[in-house]
Amino acid sequence: MSDFRPPASETAFILEHVVGYRDLAELPGFEHADLDTVVELLDEAADFMSKVVAPTNRVGDTEGARRNPDGTVTLPDAFRKAYDAYVDGGWGSLPFPEEFEGGGFPSVVGLALQEMVQSSNMAFALCPLLTQGAIDALLHYGSDDQKATYLPKMVTGEWTGTMHLTEPQAGSDVGALTTKAVPNGDGTYSITGQKIFITWGEHELTDNIVHLVLARTPGAPAGTRGISCFIVPKYLVNEDGSLGERNGTTCLSIEHKLGIHGSPTCVMQHDGATGYLIGEENQGMRIMFVMMNVARLSVGMQGVALAERAYQQALSYAKERRQGLAVGQTGTDSPIIDHPDVRRMLMTQRASIAAIRSMMLLNASQMDIASHHPDPETRQRASEIVGLLTPICKSFGTDIGNEVTSSAIQVHGGMGYIEETGVAQHFRDVRIAAIYEGTNGIQAADLVGRKLGVRDGASVMEYIAHMRGILGELTAADDDFATISAELGKQFDALESATTWMLRTGIADPQAVLSGSSPYLRMWGLVLGGWLLAKGAIAAADSGDESLAKEKLVIARFYAEQILPQVSGLSGAATAGSRDLFAL
Amino acid sequence: MSDFRPPASETAFILEHVVGYRDLAELPGFEHADLDTVVELLDEAADFMSKVVAPTNRVGDTEGARRNPDGTVTLPDAFRKAYDAYVDGGWGSLPFPEEFEGGGFPSVVGLALQEMVQSSNMAFALCPLLTQGAIDALLHYGSDDQKATYLPKMVTGEWTGTMHLTEPQAGSDVGALTTKAVPNGDGTYSITGQKIFITWGEHELTDNIVHLVLARTPGAPAGTRGISCFIVPKYLVNEDGSLGERNGTTCLSIEHKLGIHGSPTCVMQHDGATGYLIGEENQGMRIMFVMMNVARLSVGMQGVALAERAYQQALSYAKERRQGLAVGQTGTDSPIIDHPDVRRMLMTQRASIAAIRSMMLLNASQMDIASHHPDPETRQRASEIVGLLTPICKSFGTDIGNEVTSSAIQVHGGMGYIEETGVAQHFRDVRIAAIYEGTNGIQAADLVGRKLGVRDGASVMEYIAHMRGILGELTAADDDFATISAELGKQFDALESATTWMLRTGIADPQAVLSGSSPYLRMWGLVLGGWLLAKGAIAAADSGDESLAKEKLVIARFYAEQILPQVSGLSGAATAGSRDLFAL
Repeated sequence: MSDFRPPASETAFILEHVVGYRDLAELPGFEHADLDTVVELLDEAADFMSKVVAPTNRVGDTEGARRNPDGTVTLPDAFRKAYDAYVDGGWGSLPFPEEFEGGGFPSVVGLALQEMVQSSNMAFALCPLLTQGAIDALLHYGSDDQKATYLPKMVTGEWTGTMHLTEPQAGSDVGALTTKAVPNGDGTYSITGQKIFITWGEHELTDNIVHLVLARTPGAPAGTRGISCFIVPKYLVNEDGSLGERNGTTCLSIEHKLGIHGSPTCVMQHDGATGYLIGEENQGMRIMFVMMNVARLSVGMQGVALAERAYQQALSYAKERRQGLAVGQTGTDSPIIDHPDVRRMLMTQRASIAAIRSMMLLNASQMDIASHHPDPETRQRASEIVGLLTPICKSFGTDIGNEVTSSAIQVHGGMGYIEETGVAQHFRDVRIAAIYEGTNGIQAADLVGRKLGVRDGASVMEYIAHMRGILGELTAADDDFATISAELGKQFDALESATTWMLRTGIADPQAVLSGSSPYLRMWGLVLGGWLLAKGAIAAADSGDESLAKEKLVIARFYAEQILPQVSGLSGAATAGSRDLFAL
Repeated sequence: MSDFRPPASETAFILEHVVGYRDLAELPGFEHADLDTVVELLDEAADFMSKVVAPTNRVGDTEGARRNPDGTVTLPDAFRKAYDAYVDGGWGSLPFPEEFEGGGFPSVVGLALQEMVQSSNMAFALCPLLTQGAIDALLHYGSDDQKATYLPKMVTGEWTGTMHLTEPQAGSDVGALTTKAVPNGDGTYSITGQKIFITWGEHELTDNIVHLVLARTPGAPAGTRGISCFIVPKYLVNEDGSLGERNGTTCLSIEHKLGIHGSPTCVMQHDGATGYLIGEENQGMRIMFVMMNVARLSVGMQGVALAERAYQQALSYAKERRQGLAVGQTGTDSPIIDHPDVRRMLMTQRASIAAIRSMMLLNASQMDIASHHPDPETRQRASEIVGLLTPICKSFGTDIGNEVTSSAIQVHGGMGYIEETGVAQHFRDVRIAAIYEGTNGIQAADLVGRKLGVRDGASVMEYIAHMRGILGELTAADDDFATISAELGKQFDALESATTWMLRTGIADPQAVLSGSSPYLRMWGLVLGGWLLAKGAIAAADSGDESLAKEKLVIARFYAEQILPQVSGLSGAATAGSRDLFAL
């Protein structure tokens, strides 16, 4: 387990050859973040994560977070040391604006680094992840004063951030929340209510915690339109930036969870806590979406991260463990990696990880284009693509995370079921990712309900046409690419006809479209994966590096021939409508 | 959770309408086990399990099994009470021969009851499950003396049984075991060696434990041909049947596992323990296969059992939990079961469970025909079918068990990730089932390596032809069955052509066949499921019970239209050969 090292060179390959990082680095503001710099940075990060963060993963699971009778929350000692080193190294600050102590790197680099800290310790990584969401909300909607007060400390990681959304009766249905915010008359508000499932809601790793809390002001409209967002710091901040008195927000208890034991999931009580309104009243949902949009992609990346860590462990075990004699071998026994079915599990893991990592980085690179490209039309189109890809990345990435970690247990045989082996932890840890930041079902509803309709369907159809562009390149390439081309062509067709069905059906029968939303989203994930692996394979073939060319070809072809055909098997479920679902 | 009740009427429906239990009960020896009796028995069993066994499930998880410094193993108090009641009720003895205190019921009834105890408490159920394997081995290979000494107490459950196969270097590769058995000169043997992963290897629920231990006698051939099987009782048994001295077999430690915490998984040390040879020397593998064959189906049933329990919990949560307003509804919020994607998860769970339960019971009913039919040819054919279906039932059943329990967590949203909710336990518990009793990959290798070749492929092709028989019935039935017929026809074709490929390829290229074995096995599982659900739907349509007819039609059609199409999506992987698997 301690041998884990994030695969920096694979990430560098994707950045260079799949998502076109060289072009991205030419955008205004990214001059200091050219490919060579980023590749070096990734390598340093992989070193740091493997040496400093990854060794804390197991103790986080076994010791976990504990709430003390006085309401404080204790983490394993190793977390404090790793967190301090993380802050000192500036790892959390890299993707944020330089004016607030950030490194000004593109989001796609930030996401690549996030994968590394997540695979090293997902529970630990949730702390900077939530902080990032809070930072993004303040960057977009905070006043200059608020930014100056909170952002520099949050960007460096000296203070952490949280998001207080959920209440017992208000989970996916955020609009049902009842926490109250009453004006104090001095511009501040008094916040009262209980929030649950607050990730890293309380801890002692840092001097302060900046809670962003959704609440209702008196007379606010019902539902989501009546929600406002407040800064509720654990310690009030004096005018000179020093910490003042303890605010009225406390941790009542922490949850006993299936996994991520090192991440304190808190029930938080606000008893007349002092809150500072962000933006205007009733703008809370808009602010929440800023936090959540970035977080959704980060959570998708958790699927990649834990899949990668579990895969590395399974691969290493499969090379060492000897059982039985493989076909065509002599002697008494073979490493189990030589048994075809074990190799199928490992190849499926590897190809799936390469596919989902590519789509996460593609999504993030489109975010950078959407925020930094000089041409407004290009920005607008990139923004549409981010909208389309985000729910797919979140759902498909976390589904694959569940599948790969399970398969990694399977490779270990009976040892996989023993907790000390460590692979079961990844399976338990990643299971939450398909649930939080909007369940995968909610993502699918977002895809068919909001994203397909953009420009009356033209946006999505243009993207399918864009993907189809690869068929020409494949035809021009070596014969080795023939089956990739044939399979991709077939599955582009399947995706396009399911999309046409969705667009046609959606207007008259939203229920039918929602009924097929999850299998339809999975079709998208599989096709995107096959397309991006093929892109990588073509680039590798052109690179002149024969071993790289072979590796990428084999992975892309394996995926195209053996995984991608699942797409057409999903068409039936995607387009069956709602009849039988609602018949009983 | 305490609301759980095994679905006795669904099981009764399958017995009557899907696997033809009425005909089975006419076989010699089963006269006392007619359908009405069995239906009543199932109902009583469901009552008993829900009231006595099911409430012990959670405490088994939280308290678990503990090894004390003196080597004894303590289970939660509730287990002792439930076990005593289980023995008193005679629940374990029902499928065994009457001459050894059994109930003489068919295996299919035994398996149906086993599902109920497994879903009530899988960790607990492993104790009688292992005992059953040991009983079967003794029934087949034990001497009259051995049978008389051990069987009556084991059949009633007053003593339990275990199987000692695995050693650290000998897991799937049983032939690598090194435990020694040296003749003592008085007909007994002295057994020395360490065994791991011994389920219920030590406990205090009963006065004695009958370990069946695989070991090597001096000069035995290498590998699997040199393994013998011994009875090694925890306490030696005196001639008069009373218990004598403690044997030299002790529990060194118990494992800390992902799930089934209530089942002590022991490292067992044999230090010159007295062993009694079963059958002849070097017959151990044959005896082991007797134990394992029955156990494989029982483990497949664990997939059904935990899927059922998790499904019931998810269904109940989905009816109670209200979030958001569903399409076409008014008011403030709807139970989440009214949201299409939640309903898709629940319908998929329900249909999948019905499918796998049907195939388990079909498999067991063929065992009964193989052992009780007066016609030798019919027995032989049934035996072939058992051979074909068992690896499919074990693998596909446990894969679906993993999938359904995960989906049941998903239905619960964030609550599913909290251990106190209880649904995560099912997900953790069932995860071992795809691993033990031969990993699912080993099952797939058995299917393509041993079972397809029976009568040069004629056996398997006859079974596909037999399944195709339903197409005529579907055509004769109502229009409502049209899509079922179309989809089944398509997927029978896909299965048949993959099978033809396997048979053709297997002779020259066993590696290629093994490479596709797991996806090929899944094709089988899906097709069997679709076929058996269609059988049930036709029977229900003919039953005159309109509500039953509608229910079974909807389930079968949902499966046929929305799940079954996955079959053709697997063909590519099943028949791709080994090239890309072994290229890197």
